[in-house]
Amino acid sequence: MTRYALAIDLGGTKIEAGLVSEAGEVLAASRNRVPTGRDITADGLARAVSTVVAHALDHLPQGADFAGAGIGSAGPVSLADGTIHPVNMPNAFGFGLVEAVRDAVIVDLGASDVDVTMRHDGGALAMAESWLGAARGTTASLSIVVSTGVGGGIVIGGRPIGGRTGNAGHLGQTHAAEQGGELTLEEVASGPSSVRWAQLNGWQGTTGEQLSDDARRGDRVARAAIERSAEAVGRALADASTLLDLEVIAISGGFSFVADDYVELVAASLAKWAELPYARATRVVRSGLGADGPLIGAAALALRP
Amino acid sequence: MTRYALAIDLGGTKIEAGLVSEAGEVLAASRNRVPTGRDITADGLARAVSTVVAHALDHLPQGADFAGAGIGSAGPVSLADGTIHPVNMPNAFGFGLVEAVRDAVIVDLGASDVDVTMRHDGGALAMAESWLGAARGTTASLSIVVSTGVGGGIVIGGRPIGGRTGNAGHLGQTHAAEQGGELTLEEVASGPSSVRWAQLNGWQGTTGEQLSDDARRGDRVARAAIERSAEAVGRALADASTLLDLEVIAISGGFSFVADDYVELVAASLAKWAELPYARATRVVRSGLGADGPLIGAAALALRP
Repeated sequence: MTRYALAIDLGGTKIEAGLVSEAGEVLAASRNRVPTGRDITADGLARAVSTVVAHALDHLPQGADFAGAGIGSAGPVSLADGTIHPVNMPNAFGFGLVEAVRDAVIVDLGASDVDVTMRHDGGALAMAESWLGAARGTTASLSIVVSTGVGGGIVIGGRPIGGRTGNAGHLGQTHAAEQGGELTLEEVASGPSSVRWAQLNGWQGTTGEQLSDDARRGDRVARAAIERSAEAVGRALADASTLLDLEVIAISGGFSFVADDYVELVAASLAKWAELPYARATRVVRSGLGADGPLIGAAALALRP
Repeated sequence: MTRYALAIDLGGTKIEAGLVSEAGEVLAASRNRVPTGRDITADGLARAVSTVVAHALDHLPQGADFAGAGIGSAGPVSLADGTIHPVNMPNAFGFGLVEAVRDAVIVDLGASDVDVTMRHDGGALAMAESWLGAARGTTASLSIVVSTGVGGGIVIGGRPIGGRTGNAGHLGQTHAAEQGGELTLEEVASGPSSVRWAQLNGWQGTTGEQLSDDARRGDRVARAAIERSAEAVGRALADASTLLDLEVIAISGGFSFVADDYVELVAASLAKWAELPYARATRVVRSGLGADGPLIGAAALALRP
């Protein structure tokens, strides 16, 4: 009898749900999403949760074993009371996401209770990377996303490191060395930050895609913006690896594709800045996950606790 | 029947051993030390291990249950093969400390095998802090030592976080914000680094004790050197807490006593620099351990695996 977990991924633009088998496969028909966006309220989110959960659970195969629900949410989250405090959805601040998912599952399955495990999205993605991706079988890994923001999650010995409130891994809100350490890594190295820096240095484009194209064509400022991002990420990772003694760091996110050698640039920066041999030995690799990563990671929280 | 662990603490100046009960009490008569020093060789260390282990085990009470040995060693260590690569003992680089301790115990007790668990000294101390000190009962803690160097260890859910090679917690080799991020935290904030900075700014003394006395008497440069150290430690801890979502950070080490308000200065710096609410909420407290901390931590590795 196959076991399935309900996986929920709540981001800044959409909430998505699906059933994921214990082999890590997303049941295609169960997968569905509802747009959210910056202005969504707690009521709106509650309705969206009901919708995507009901659709997903409709596809639970007859007789299948249900392992519970896992949630990866835009952070910060609060594990103590199951609420979320997403920076990018201010009107949903304090929303009880765990309870909303639990209530929806109980109604849909007619169950008396259900296990629901939540982490911020970076923590969930790190679980996917550790389970089926680039950090598979490793003792200590950090998985990061370089995109509109910079986030991440930590897995040690196969278990997600949540910390006190479930938010461990928020690498983007640690500080970069630039400008006397006043800026966060996200403010230096994210896609939008890199575009802004290039513009301030005379580049004429407006998007990460243009930055990528122009750098490929030899535009020096565009290339410098990309190198600056990778250098800053690598420096932060050198310190993270010194602190955590990591075996592998997996890099994903749209902006990590801005140059073919982006991951190599990050690895070179880490090797340059790590002071101790064990930290210099950390492998920096591209993510082993496709677009299913966030759902697989959310499911892993339920399937591999 | 009381259980005892053999605890070994290897530092830059001495190797110490003792028996520690499962209640965390060091059996006074079993405690003994042999000086080491920068020039000690692998042979010299092997002899020192035999000596301190034999003395400690001589005091194992009749009929007591032996839980194995725990080691806290000057780092870096290598858990894979049980060797140490201590920065401050270059001639003992690659010494098989785990095997030396195991062999000594087997000879002394006539046992066929014995469990030996090693961490670097910061990791061992963090276990002591989590077991019986300021981080007792917490979900996620970092314990740091500010002294001749700056070190630390991480405990999550009662377990020491070792990482791939057992070296997680080396906070002193992460980078400080000063001078464009070129310097490590240790190079900015340790006792000797603070003394040097004060001297460069016209202060006339030579020791941390003088720095402490002069700051108390109103010497502005001496006071500034102390504040600079605390500010740098707090900034590093803000980033560590953002990455690890820590509940408590415990501070020990000789230089942390340089001013009565040193820990408060560190806490204020963390609160100023942490970007996210959960990281600002991390409590920064003085260590709850006395001089027995290192031995208790080493024992915890064997008694609370």
